[in-house]
Amino acid sequence: MQEFNKDTIIALATPSGVGAIAIIRLSGDKAIALVNNHFQSKFGDKDLTKVASHTLHLGNLMDNDKVIDEVLVSVFKNPNSYTGENLVEINCHGSVYIQQEIIQLFIRNGARQADGGEFTLRAFLHGKMDLSQAEAVADVISSNSASSHQIAIQQMRGGFSKELFTLRQQLLDFASLIELELDFSEEDLTFADRTQLRKLIDQLISQVKTLLDSFSLGNVFKNGIPVAIVGAPNAGKSTLLNVLLNDDKAIVSEIAGTTRDAIEDDITINGVLFRFIDTAGIRDTTDTVERIGITKTFENIEKAQLILYLIDAGSQQNTTTLQKEILQIQEQYPHKKIIPILNKTDLIPYHQISTYKVLLPDLISLSAKDKRGIHLLTEALSQLANLGVLSSNQTIVSNSRHYEALTNAHTALQEVSEGLYKNLPSDLLAIDIRESLRQLGSITGDFDVDRDLLGNIFQNFCVGK
Amino acid sequence: MQEFNKDTIIALATPSGVGAIAIIRLSGDKAIALVNNHFQSKFGDKDLTKVASHTLHLGNLMDNDKVIDEVLVSVFKNPNSYTGENLVEINCHGSVYIQQEIIQLFIRNGARQADGGEFTLRAFLHGKMDLSQAEAVADVISSNSASSHQIAIQQMRGGFSKELFTLRQQLLDFASLIELELDFSEEDLTFADRTQLRKLIDQLISQVKTLLDSFSLGNVFKNGIPVAIVGAPNAGKSTLLNVLLNDDKAIVSEIAGTTRDAIEDDITINGVLFRFIDTAGIRDTTDTVERIGITKTFENIEKAQLILYLIDAGSQQNTTTLQKEILQIQEQYPHKKIIPILNKTDLIPYHQISTYKVLLPDLISLSAKDKRGIHLLTEALSQLANLGVLSSNQTIVSNSRHYEALTNAHTALQEVSEGLYKNLPSDLLAIDIRESLRQLGSITGDFDVDRDLLGNIFQNFCVGK
Repeated sequence: MQEFNKDTIIALATPSGVGAIAIIRLSGDKAIALVNNHFQSKFGDKDLTKVASHTLHLGNLMDNDKVIDEVLVSVFKNPNSYTGENLVEINCHGSVYIQQEIIQLFIRNGARQADGGEFTLRAFLHGKMDLSQAEAVADVISSNSASSHQIAIQQMRGGFSKELFTLRQQLLDFASLIELELDFSEEDLTFADRTQLRKLIDQLISQVKTLLDSFSLGNVFKNGIPVAIVGAPNAGKSTLLNVLLNDDKAIVSEIAGTTRDAIEDDITINGVLFRFIDTAGIRDTTDTVERIGITKTFENIEKAQLILYLIDAGSQQNTTTLQKEILQIQEQYPHKKIIPILNKTDLIPYHQISTYKVLLPDLISLSAKDKRGIHLLTEALSQLANLGVLSSNQTIVSNSRHYEALTNAHTALQEVSEGLYKNLPSDLLAIDIRESLRQLGSITGDFDVDRDLLGNIFQNFCVGK
Repeated sequence: MQEFNKDTIIALATPSGVGAIAIIRLSGDKAIALVNNHFQSKFGDKDLTKVASHTLHLGNLMDNDKVIDEVLVSVFKNPNSYTGENLVEINCHGSVYIQQEIIQLFIRNGARQADGGEFTLRAFLHGKMDLSQAEAVADVISSNSASSHQIAIQQMRGGFSKELFTLRQQLLDFASLIELELDFSEEDLTFADRTQLRKLIDQLISQVKTLLDSFSLGNVFKNGIPVAIVGAPNAGKSTLLNVLLNDDKAIVSEIAGTTRDAIEDDITINGVLFRFIDTAGIRDTTDTVERIGITKTFENIEKAQLILYLIDAGSQQNTTTLQKEILQIQEQYPHKKIIPILNKTDLIPYHQISTYKVLLPDLISLSAKDKRGIHLLTEALSQLANLGVLSSNQTIVSNSRHYEALTNAHTALQEVSEGLYKNLPSDLLAIDIRESLRQLGSITGDFDVDRDLLGNIFQNFCVGK
């Protein structure tokens, strides 16, 4: 594990495309020397290999006699860099042509295009961060809401690692007592007080369980809370989505504009990501709720956590029928929250809204077209998203690899607990204790981690990180 | 002109979107202090306002108690920065969410979103670069070929400015002699040797003319050499374009991929940009070349500098007719270079190609489908692009504002020359000399430049530069 390539890797670290500045990153023993060979300082002779770490240098990047660009070079010296190696960041003009010329110049001179996440992999291998922190780096970069960002930042800064460290420390103390008994097993000694041990292991199980339970929330914050909008095709679903989307877009404004279009049904409301699921045509071909089950709509509702039941105020539907339909959906999905929404309130007189409210007390009435009452919906959604949990400092697990390891650790700990109650011999207990330690350690990479796992983790990174 | 806002401006300097790193730039008297208020060093208390210029600092960016991101802060102190002001670059994780949070944090605390090009405008106003260099910054960023890049880099580094400085210096010497005569005009003295003056002015005119003449080349390198492909609809035009495009794409590969699609008929061949112009349907509705004139195709050929005349080898067309058609086009466009291309050579036996070559000696034969003979075309195009001119150190004018100023200077200088030959009095000569000085000075911004002009120039910049 500790041996790895010492070659110089290079990659564009900023988003591809044209901008004022682009950053090209090189890391490796020879990174500074390599850049120095092609750097001509603006202020007389300057040897980048001899400058202090964390300094910036203005000059020209040269391909023989040709100036490729005027650049600003940041020098970071081993071990005080992101990767823990010698690291150089070249800030060049943000033209695609220049980015390409610079990367090709250094590749011709011995550097190698970095794989996705290879800079962070090197940081992990040099002990600059543990595995769960490294994974959080990718989450920080891809976070697109306040909630997912907060979980990722906390994890990157080592909040989760500290909690795991404490857990493992307690488990190690426990293990050392059991292992001690093993050493003296012939003498049939019992060093560890079984009652104390039982108490400790139950406490550990409960802590791991709390982390496990946080995953559903973490997953939801990371991937968005799935919301299905149910309703007749002309109930105004897309108008409502567009209004919500525009609210969102207005906030992220100029910065996010370009990346938003592809995922236009992901909407951030008060810092929480909601993933709106298409359920077009719930009542295209049928009037009875029972038959939903055979349509794709059914599958989509199945995936959702919240259901917005959209009613077209203009359709003059019988309110008792509506109430019955909503109750039927609720019976079919007892664990999903249904919010009835009366849209197109611009089409009916105010007193008519009250008649809806009598039968559907949770009803939110709005006009997507006139952008009236939208805040009532966004407030309800925010409230349901349970922001309270987030503002506390509770650790939230959001990575499915961590969830799996915690689940395995939980199972092994339960085996230990059962074994204690059954008075199993120490050698059998020790197997499960070791397994739970190994599982907890795999999250931060404290045990030997195999290359395949690392490859899996870092391949999801963008190149340049 | 020297008074301008001292407020702190902020902008994202890297391309928008998700990447490993993003740079947010702040400039202004209070920029360092402002960032310092929200910066928490990783290494104990650190006051960014007291650190040395050109240093890098790792820490957390804080919004009160909340960590927005772990960032790397570059500090540049007035006057040693890009803008000549206190300048801070914040390298943060490249998530759109984080970029937005950071920019909004500082806007809430007194910074202002920068206008396009405002950083470079400030650099100009602080005398860090002249106007033609500032304009070259935008050209460097948008350059997408070796040729346009080289022209822009040379201009940014001040090559053009130096040439203009010399020209103006000579003109000033001349002007001071004339102005001296004006001071003593009552005494009817002639200080300046008219023969010397004539020689000098003719020399200046010739130098300005050389710069003016370089514009057609500069413009072509900047915007691409316009090439029209003429031929029957099924002659294989789009296959040929795709093959050329893929060759190009293969070189820029991963880096440029995303930005290329929109301009897919702009193709870089050996470092020179070619702009292929659509002439679909040249013979859709007619057999006679004479009738081209009334179609859109005519306008497009008009815009082109090179014409590729594509012949479908499979169509078994009469070669004499072909030769006649090509001659007719050549007569109609005597200044355009026509390259006859025999495509689909895979469909005919080799000896048939020779029969085409007898009548059309310049013929390039290829098979776009099989990617055979493509290099013959790219070599011919490169040769015609006259790369030789580029490799010399001749200054090439590529900016139409500069071209206009040079044209005006040229006109004024010719007036001076005529005036000298006509023995006009000094006061009349002085008017034209001052005008030519003003025109040359407007290129580098050495004379008072009005706000409207500056606005015009910098609005084309991307925000963040």
